[in-house]
Amino acid sequence: MKFAVFGLGALGTVFATLLKEKGHTVYGITKRETQHLLQNLPFKVSGIWGEHRAVLDKVTSSLMDINEDIDYIILTVKSYDTKTAVRQIKPYIKGNTKVLLAQNGYGNYEIVSQEIGKDRTLLSRVIFGAKLLELGHAEVTVIADDVVIGQPEGKIPKEDIQTLVDVLNQAHIPTRYSTDVYKILWDKILYNCALNPLGALLECTYGQLASCEKTREVMDNIIQEIFWVAKEHNIKLNWETVEDYKRYFYETLIPPTSKHYPSMYYDLKSGKKLEIDSLNGAIVRLAHEKGIKVPVNETITNMIKTKEFINSN
Amino acid sequence: MKFAVFGLGALGTVFATLLKEKGHTVYGITKRETQHLLQNLPFKVSGIWGEHRAVLDKVTSSLMDINEDIDYIILTVKSYDTKTAVRQIKPYIKGNTKVLLAQNGYGNYEIVSQEIGKDRTLLSRVIFGAKLLELGHAEVTVIADDVVIGQPEGKIPKEDIQTLVDVLNQAHIPTRYSTDVYKILWDKILYNCALNPLGALLECTYGQLASCEKTREVMDNIIQEIFWVAKEHNIKLNWETVEDYKRYFYETLIPPTSKHYPSMYYDLKSGKKLEIDSLNGAIVRLAHEKGIKVPVNETITNMIKTKEFINSN
Repeated sequence: MKFAVFGLGALGTVFATLLKEKGHTVYGITKRETQHLLQNLPFKVSGIWGEHRAVLDKVTSSLMDINEDIDYIILTVKSYDTKTAVRQIKPYIKGNTKVLLAQNGYGNYEIVSQEIGKDRTLLSRVIFGAKLLELGHAEVTVIADDVVIGQPEGKIPKEDIQTLVDVLNQAHIPTRYSTDVYKILWDKILYNCALNPLGALLECTYGQLASCEKTREVMDNIIQEIFWVAKEHNIKLNWETVEDYKRYFYETLIPPTSKHYPSMYYDLKSGKKLEIDSLNGAIVRLAHEKGIKVPVNETITNMIKTKEFINSN
Repeated sequence: MKFAVFGLGALGTVFATLLKEKGHTVYGITKRETQHLLQNLPFKVSGIWGEHRAVLDKVTSSLMDINEDIDYIILTVKSYDTKTAVRQIKPYIKGNTKVLLAQNGYGNYEIVSQEIGKDRTLLSRVIFGAKLLELGHAEVTVIADDVVIGQPEGKIPKEDIQTLVDVLNQAHIPTRYSTDVYKILWDKILYNCALNPLGALLECTYGQLASCEKTREVMDNIIQEIFWVAKEHNIKLNWETVEDYKRYFYETLIPPTSKHYPSMYYDLKSGKKLEIDSLNGAIVRLAHEKGIKVPVNETITNMIKTKEFINSN
């Protein structure tokens, strides 16, 4: 198969290396500034999935430089770059090219499917963790569950998706197909909205957040507001009631990751741009569209934006 | 006049030193642990009001050790210690003894006046800043306005209060009488609720908070919720509308203090207990009493309490 991995951060590096190692054609698309550093470099993946290495077919800053029909463009850029990325990708979508979204938060599927069509847009929920040790070298640190892939509205035949799922599994990336990918992604949105900005603002681990009754009140309110928003927008969640999700959240999700700090904590410390607009910020936008109030998500979003503002001034 | 200054932090040290220097009888009441360190020590005040020093008549840990009728007990303890303090004070209130509250936040007047009677409880709004350089040595760093003193419900004759006001002025503490002391204290509560916990959580100055549009949204919501609570409780504020107060807040109050960090910022950093329960936490309690929602004050309060919890664990 022919892949272009758009974005060579930790996640993109993992996908590119493992697919190339398995013998597929893999092009890497990265920023103009780093393109020359990655050209002909042996890409490496280490960590819990063992040691892997491969040299990509080409690393470039634009799909323009690739004179082949790509089967899958794997989009791994941060959510705030999705709009720009899809505009760059669009002119090069032809034949059977599809885009696989491997990103966080709400809004990416909506933006990309509107731009290039639902029948070319595959959504995934990625829940393994990787960090970039250096350019071209990623470490896989933790995996909570398979990558889940699907077309949220059934616009791509199951067999096609299953072929991709098989290819990823053969490349040692545990993956499964699901018609419920959208719901499953929302599970992660709920999790990230409740934990990430609070962990970043209060500088503490998931376990510390969950062990303090007062923080639980805040997280409970964040989750409650998301359920209200989802209901108004007819977004189907995996859980009938807030209580069901909260039980899963506190009893199943948090304990194994209790010592982790959210990536937003590290990103805030290092002055990086944060993905708040596709998490709690997206909840605020969705709420405003329906005229409902989500004051807790709004307060948390504004506090994160204040931190970004102060860091950049 | 005969004074007992209950609490020898920065503020208590200023009152005690300046009153003693002027020739009044002044007893200092402090914690048992520090009592012996302060006995016979020359108290000092430095800073914007010049250099002052005096040796108090006695420093002790209980009013039990003072065999004289006191005219005024000046209460300067932190709000979370008010209940304990008034129980210690109560048995020694006799003759004409009155208590002057020189504290921050909501709830102190309510607690003390209920315990010892409105006709013995004087409220003040103190808005000069002092810091304790070492035990018995305070520096006055800034003054925004006179100390304002009054009996919120007119239960003490104006002449009596005016006598105390004159004594304080003669002791170089700028002071005036006002029937509106309760409203004026609420001005400070509004100011502190909007700025202190956010400055502490986001680790920034008043000016930084006010310069970021997103933080203004949060502060605007905090202020709006306080107006709702005040209305429900029939608490008269100095301002007809939220807009009036906000104009005063952003245009008059913040600019001269724009480079300041709130004391809560320093207290949080040094692991001290915070006065959140008499600020935003009091707003939450007052709201719950009337069954109204103040989600922004509640979220901020819970975040501060999380920080305290993490610091103490």
